[in-house]
Amino acid sequence: MNKYAPPAFQLSARHLESVREAAGRIQGMVQRTPCFLNERLSQQLGCSLYVKAENLQPCGAFKVRGATNAVFAAAPDVIARGVLTHSSGNHAAAIARAASLRGVPAYIVMPENSAAGKIANVRAYGVEPVFCAPTADARQAKADELLAETGAYFIHPYNQADVIAGQGTMGLEILEQVPDVDLIVVPVGGGGMMSGILLAIKSLRPEVQVIGAEPEFADDAYRSLQSGRIEPPNRYDTIADGLRTPLGELTFPIIQSLMDDLTLVSEQAIVEATEELSYAAKLVLEPSGGVAYAAARKIASRHAGKNVVVIACGGNV
Amino acid sequence: MNKYAPPAFQLSARHLESVREAAGRIQGMVQRTPCFLNERLSQQLGCSLYVKAENLQPCGAFKVRGATNAVFAAAPDVIARGVLTHSSGNHAAAIARAASLRGVPAYIVMPENSAAGKIANVRAYGVEPVFCAPTADARQAKADELLAETGAYFIHPYNQADVIAGQGTMGLEILEQVPDVDLIVVPVGGGGMMSGILLAIKSLRPEVQVIGAEPEFADDAYRSLQSGRIEPPNRYDTIADGLRTPLGELTFPIIQSLMDDLTLVSEQAIVEATEELSYAAKLVLEPSGGVAYAAARKIASRHAGKNVVVIACGGNV
Repeated sequence: MNKYAPPAFQLSARHLESVREAAGRIQGMVQRTPCFLNERLSQQLGCSLYVKAENLQPCGAFKVRGATNAVFAAAPDVIARGVLTHSSGNHAAAIARAASLRGVPAYIVMPENSAAGKIANVRAYGVEPVFCAPTADARQAKADELLAETGAYFIHPYNQADVIAGQGTMGLEILEQVPDVDLIVVPVGGGGMMSGILLAIKSLRPEVQVIGAEPEFADDAYRSLQSGRIEPPNRYDTIADGLRTPLGELTFPIIQSLMDDLTLVSEQAIVEATEELSYAAKLVLEPSGGVAYAAARKIASRHAGKNVVVIACGGNV
Repeated sequence: MNKYAPPAFQLSARHLESVREAAGRIQGMVQRTPCFLNERLSQQLGCSLYVKAENLQPCGAFKVRGATNAVFAAAPDVIARGVLTHSSGNHAAAIARAASLRGVPAYIVMPENSAAGKIANVRAYGVEPVFCAPTADARQAKADELLAETGAYFIHPYNQADVIAGQGTMGLEILEQVPDVDLIVVPVGGGGMMSGILLAIKSLRPEVQVIGAEPEFADDAYRSLQSGRIEPPNRYDTIADGLRTPLGELTFPIIQSLMDDLTLVSEQAIVEATEELSYAAKLVLEPSGGVAYAAARKIASRHAGKNVVVIACGGNV
């Protein structure tokens, strides 16, 4: 999918190794989530549709994978004064949980328009979030300020190698759970999940297609691929609140080099797809959790008869 | 739990064997559902609370286990003219699905007040239900009539050995998934799920407590245990529509002999518990699916610190 710029990323054996190390490190602290064939949706879409139910993770989202890996990969002296992050929600709770498991303090910066349930999830781990304006710049400024104060270890929600490797464990599981997978549809926000899955899949089974799914109202990845540089979001109001973030300097080159395609979906399609997937698969899903399925529906004619996995990435409504 | 009548049931090696045979027979046609520790509810109840997510089965309920086992256990000449059943819903869809997998016709009698979604689930397998009045007698009468017409093989929703053995496969999975389980809470309607789980658990790990959960508005099992004979329901209006049925001649003696205790739960408690479990575990659940958790909440002080499994038996709302 690299049309406009030379690839800045080279896949190597150490990338797969980082994902495998993450899988060993987080085992027992995160779930191996089911990836079940859904008969009803398979019939509707004319393919074999599998749902990877990441909403069943602790904290209700895939973010526990990367957060737990990053917290436990850090050297003791690095993490002694605690961990700090900014996040619209699911990464925040995941860091709070991982810090609690490791026994270090957590400092969490959240946009003031974060979903109430996601704020409550952070508080459930005994951490009071520090709120900021709902833009990427405001998040980072508040995080920098707090970092200087506390000396904590910063764990970015997606633009960090350990986080990316942790999310990549989903890719390893998918290959074990659906060995004959043809296509995986992955939501793209900051690109951490997509990057991790690409590292795993393109190392082990490069012929498997990996397709991004992005809201039209948060089409920064789409525009970044067009322009060849990281573009900021134009607006921050997609209902898929987990996907309101720009790509990062680590995630963009991986996506630019390895991702096969990207599909944009409308707000209406996200709402419909989330309801349909929730009803058919019996999973409570947040709108971001329905975005991959929305894309799979939109491009159904392209994968007729294929084995398609959609990531239902979170359930914190 | 047998206070008023001599036990009419003796557990033997062939019971466990029937469950193990069922597990082999239905493998690949039903899911091995997850049984995940829920951190939030564990904290609330002061125990380690595991949720066996049977709503993730095809057709959205555990009933596929028994139905699939019964349809595939039948000899070819027995089932050649199709299968027939009566059910308030989930067993109906499960039989329609299993018949479709085996390639034989299905005849389904459903009470006219069955949930719309459950009727739609039967139609999804190309079968038009035959409706009857919402009582056990009316169901049976309509089924008998249709049976005489078609010569189909009757598969009772719970009072049949192959169905019970199929439901028992849940018990085998729970012992593998939570090896240190102390207590399992199981909803009781007709008693098929409870009987199957008892056959598996009391054969392999008799010290594991198995507790029934029944709506106050469908307390026939509770009254049957008191009187020592099968009592009919007094009313048919509990919101937990999957549990409106009386015990059967096969299920009652098993339950009477092997079940450790039974807890009644109010309609209000069922609604609250279903919402709480659905939110915390990110599972779409029907009210019957929340009944076991409602009972676990009610008796939480009795299992503090223990490993408790609740069956979330279905998600067809």
